[in-house]
Amino acid sequence: MEEMAFQDHYGDSVAHCYGCGRLNEHGLQLKSYWEGNEAVCRFVPRAYHTGIPGFAYGGLIASLIDCHGTATAAASAYRAQERGMDTLPRLRYVTASLHVDYVRPTPIGGVLELRAEVKEVKGRKIVVGMTLSAGGEVCARGEVVAVPMPEKWLDGGS
Amino acid sequence: MEEMAFQDHYGDSVAHCYGCGRLNEHGLQLKSYWEGNEAVCRFVPRAYHTGIPGFAYGGLIASLIDCHGTATAAASAYRAQERGMDTLPRLRYVTASLHVDYVRPTPIGGVLELRAEVKEVKGRKIVVGMTLSAGGEVCARGEVVAVPMPEKWLDGGS
Repeated sequence: MEEMAFQDHYGDSVAHCYGCGRLNEHGLQLKSYWEGNEAVCRFVPRAYHTGIPGFAYGGLIASLIDCHGTATAAASAYRAQERGMDTLPRLRYVTASLHVDYVRPTPIGGVLELRAEVKEVKGRKIVVGMTLSAGGEVCARGEVVAVPMPEKWLDGGS
Repeated sequence: MEEMAFQDHYGDSVAHCYGCGRLNEHGLQLKSYWEGNEAVCRFVPRAYHTGIPGFAYGGLIASLIDCHGTATAAASAYRAQERGMDTLPRLRYVTASLHVDYVRPTPIGGVLELRAEVKEVKGRKIVVGMTLSAGGEVCARGEVVAVPMPEKWLDGGS
C-alpha cells in the first residue's frame, strides 16, 4: 500500500470535488490506495447518508463508485507508464459513464469497502470494474468508463 | 402539475432518504411532479456540490437521477392503477440498477432540470429513462431500473 492516497496527489485545481477533493470541507474526502492490482477505498457513511433507515442511500453508493473509479483510472495510467502520481505530465480522469447494480441493501453501520480493477483500456478510455462490500458481503457492483480530463482543468496544480 | 410532489406522499418510514426524504434535514429533498407524461424535477446544486470548479459533481448527478427515477416509477405505478399516491395499497420502488452517461460538463450556477419517462414495464420492473439539462442543454442521460420496495420497509406510513 502506498502511503499517500491517489487523491492526495491531485493538484489544487482538481481537489475540490465533493466526492474526493481534500479541499472540499463539506465533501466525502474519499481516499483510494493500491493493494496489489486492486485499488481499495474504505468509507464509513454518516448517519444521514441513509436511504431506507438502516441502509445506505443509493446515490451515496453511486458517488463512491464514481470517484473511486476515476481515481483508479488515473492511478493505473501512471502505473502503465511506470511513474509516480507526483510526476509530470499530470494524468486525471473524468467519468464518461457510470453503471451500478444494487445487489442487496447496503447496511449503514460500518465500513464500506470498494475494490476496483481495470477491466479494459480502449484507446483513451479506461474501464474500471468494482465491488462495494459491507462485512464481507458484496452489496453493489459498479463500472466506470473514465476518459482523460481536459487539459485546461489541470491548470494550477500538479 | 399536481400540487404535492411525489415524495410528499411517502410515508414517514420511507421519508428519510438523503436524496429525496422530506425528513432528512441534511439531504437534497428532491421534489418530482408530473408535466403531462413526463416527470420533472428541478434542483439547484449548492456551491459545495462541485466536481471540477464551476461544474457539478458526477455523484450528485447520479443521485438526482436515482431518486427522481424511483419516484417516477412509483408515481407511474399509481397512474397505471388509476389512483392517487395517497391511496392504499402503497407502492414504493427501489433501484435495482442505475446507468448514467455524462454527455457534457454540468454547470453548477443554476437550475438543473430532470425530465423522466417510463420506457418499459417488465413484470415487476419499471425502466425509467431521463435527461438532466442545464439552460436547455442536455448534460447527462440516465436510466433507472426500479423494483418494488419490500413490504416490510413500508410499515409505519402511508
